Amino acid sequence: MYRIIKQDGKAKRGELKTVHGTIQTPVFMNVGTAAAIKGAVSTQDLQTLKTQVQLSNTYHLHVRPGDQVVRQLGGLHKFMVWDKPILTDSGGFQVFSLASLRKIKEEGVYFQSHVDGRKIFMGPEESMRIQSNLASTIAMAFDECPSSKAPKEYVESSVERTTRWLERCKNELNRLNQLEDTINKKQLLFGINQGAIFDEIRIEHAKRIAEMDLDGYAVGGLAVGETHEEMYHILDATVEHLPINKPTYLMGVGTPFNILEAVDRGVDFFDCVYPTRNGRHGHLYTNNGKINLFNQKFELDDRPIEEGCQCPACQAYSRAYIRHLLKAKEMLGMRLCVMHNLYFYNTMMEEIREAIEQGNYKKYKTEKIRRMTQI
Amino acid sequence: MYRIIKQDGKAKRGELKTVHGTIQTPVFMNVGTAAAIKGAVSTQDLQTLKTQVQLSNTYHLHVRPGDQVVRQLGGLHKFMVWDKPILTDSGGFQVFSLASLRKIKEEGVYFQSHVDGRKIFMGPEESMRIQSNLASTIAMAFDECPSSKAPKEYVESSVERTTRWLERCKNELNRLNQLEDTINKKQLLFGINQGAIFDEIRIEHAKRIAEMDLDGYAVGGLAVGETHEEMYHILDATVEHLPINKPTYLMGVGTPFNILEAVDRGVDFFDCVYPTRNGRHGHLYTNNGKINLFNQKFELDDRPIEEGCQCPACQAYSRAYIRHLLKAKEMLGMRLCVMHNLYFYNTMMEEIREAIEQGNYKKYKTEKIRRMTQI
Repeated sequence: MYRIIKQDGKAKRGELKTVHGTIQTPVFMNVGTAAAIKGAVSTQDLQTLKTQVQLSNTYHLHVRPGDQVVRQLGGLHKFMVWDKPILTDSGGFQVFSLASLRKIKEEGVYFQSHVDGRKIFMGPEESMRIQSNLASTIAMAFDECPSSKAPKEYVESSVERTTRWLERCKNELNRLNQLEDTINKKQLLFGINQGAIFDEIRIEHAKRIAEMDLDGYAVGGLAVGETHEEMYHILDATVEHLPINKPTYLMGVGTPFNILEAVDRGVDFFDCVYPTRNGRHGHLYTNNGKINLFNQKFELDDRPIEEGCQCPACQAYSRAYIRHLLKAKEMLGMRLCVMHNLYFYNTMMEEIREAIEQGNYKKYKTEKIRRMTQI
Repeated sequence: MYRIIKQDGKAKRGELKTVHGTIQTPVFMNVGTAAAIKGAVSTQDLQTLKTQVQLSNTYHLHVRPGDQVVRQLGGLHKFMVWDKPILTDSGGFQVFSLASLRKIKEEGVYFQSHVDGRKIFMGPEESMRIQSNLASTIAMAFDECPSSKAPKEYVESSVERTTRWLERCKNELNRLNQLEDTINKKQLLFGINQGAIFDEIRIEHAKRIAEMDLDGYAVGGLAVGETHEEMYHILDATVEHLPINKPTYLMGVGTPFNILEAVDRGVDFFDCVYPTRNGRHGHLYTNNGKINLFNQKFELDDRPIEEGCQCPACQAYSRAYIRHLLKAKEMLGMRLCVMHNLYFYNTMMEEIREAIEQGNYKKYKTEKIRRMTQI
């Protein structure tokens, strides 16, 4: 299902065939936490923004509207009206970052909903059942994401439990995929490498899960407080121990620079809230660096956010107008900024794929970084 | 510039030729207070929602971003990227409803900005200069809108001042339209009839301003607390004293029922925040009555907001999905609801125009009201 079209150094130009279409990698997945892209962007808009994969959050959808509701409505694709691939995370990360009063046991995690305080239990089997109800294209394994500051002993035992959870995830998803009334019987499973910033734990864990013949492998637990150098170091140490003939996914990362560096280390799936969150605050990505539209100097600037950009915002509206919208707290301002930023990310991924195809990746990366840091 | 194509009882099917294109009436003007439709709807979206006229608020734009900024950017049409007609109100209504510490004098009104508390003066000349800077298609005269509860003596003297202000507006706009560097030298001026709920004052004022040969006439000071019956009564008493061969504009009105009744009394321009404000709260107009998408019964409803509706929301998304978006406070929910409501209003205006053309208006109105009140 996954094949490498071209390699350039460690950078992989691949494609993953799924029941919802083929994903060209490296790819940036656009985050739609609660089955919606923040900033009033719809799945129809995603089509014009070059989005290949939409990512939604299992925990959020389980809490609201409920995965049973989504299942009764035909799964996430029908619910959101999106026929291309969808990846759902496992809920694990949100359980650890959003929920309160959590208690981790061998069977799973007990916690309280951040919406209504209701007590919820989620373990590997529950996560797989919820994701099967959501019927995403790719399900993520249920894991614990230990803090980058956690002591080594804790991380060791946590990662061992995550491995046991992964086996349970695999068994449960196999079972679910064979049930008569499962919406997507070809749901894929990606495992997640953990180990905080400890090379040996990361490498040992990568080797263990590599043997499990999963559909893809993620590196989790990064971009949670460690430095960029630590992150690149972990990738240098870990990625080579994950199967090269499977997609490699760096979860929750990151800035354009992070992506450019991680591609160079063999990563081909990414997701991050930066383009949407920054867009909502008027922080815009351009090939000449980030700009903040709240800045006074844009008051009379009738140029688009970025000259030559083909996104819906730049095709019609000026910096001055969008700045006014943001200052007047008009939602339209956020919408236009989010659309620009998503388009910027997706276009950069196109360039990355082309550069790898042409065996040109290092040069492309250096030049891109140079331009983006000039202002 | 304005001609009546057909009359059906008192209902007028007209058209107004402007420098920004011809307006087919009766028309509903879509409210974009601060040069933006609330609910993340852009001027590009308005094209698909059958919008003929966009309405923006002079007071809001004067305060932020400032009419001088809009002028330097080429006027409101260039600023918002909208090439069809724009009507700007005079700022009067907002000065009386939003601003604090106001003081009304013969020369105009002293008040404080609701944004930053800055002291501002606005009189007829200032309002015309601001609207000339905005370069809207139609400028509204600067008036005082007395409360529907104001005593008769106050209303009498207020209306007399409003007449004196109207003369000053006319003179100032004539002067501005002749200046070399005025952006829209063909800016039109509509006068505003006032008089609260006093027939004699309304009629007397209508006769006075009718003599001034303005480009159009509005009935103002309604939908501000009086009953619907009082409003219809005032229209019955007043509209016949305004020139039939000029457009008649009922300001800030209203519900679909109000519009249907007012058209039957000779009104052909409308504006109201209901479709956008109600949309943002999940209250949706349909031909079978209003629905509230927050209602539990829509949780699993996979039908569009209204079957057969051609709006962008109904063409793609289900009640269940939009309900989820609203409950999850995702902006996209508001956007889809606002688009549906604006499309509903604009489509009803199309039907109204067609019914008048066919000499069928009373029957159409009765049937439309019957259907909309059945649930």
